[in-house]
Amino acid sequence: MEAAAAFGKVLRRLRTEAGMTQEQLAFEADLRRTYISILELGQQQPTLTTILKLSAALNTSAAALIEKVEAELGN
Amino acid sequence: MEAAAAFGKVLRRLRTEAGMTQEQLAFEADLRRTYISILELGQQQPTLTTILKLSAALNTSAAALIEKVEAELGN
Repeated sequence: MEAAAAFGKVLRRLRTEAGMTQEQLAFEADLRRTYISILELGQQQPTLTTILKLSAALNTSAAALIEKVEAELGN
Repeated sequence: MEAAAAFGKVLRRLRTEAGMTQEQLAFEADLRRTYISILELGQQQPTLTTILKLSAALNTSAAALIEKVEAELGN
């Protein structure tokens, strides 16, 4: 699996586990809703700043988020 | 400290700890030497793929690399 796709899969999982809509996550992370959608679909890969914003909005660390992405890539 | 600057600081530290030149790291990570320089100077922030390439070249995980960046940002 490609990095963007793995990230998107993990992002969608964490967001739904947190019971958040894309709109809610976008608001919390100060990102656009359409960008959340693009990321979840694996159509674009995130920058470091985006990773930091999303992990903060999901109440996790960026390191923990990336660890899940690496686990996904290893599958 | 901004994310790009924190990443650059950590990258330079890990590279020098590994005893690698920018040229060597660029070769191992399949990136341009000038891009390594730009990243180390904090002039651009890395994408997820770049983070994955660099951590692999430095024999660490991307999660461990990002954990160091978060520690740097917390300082």
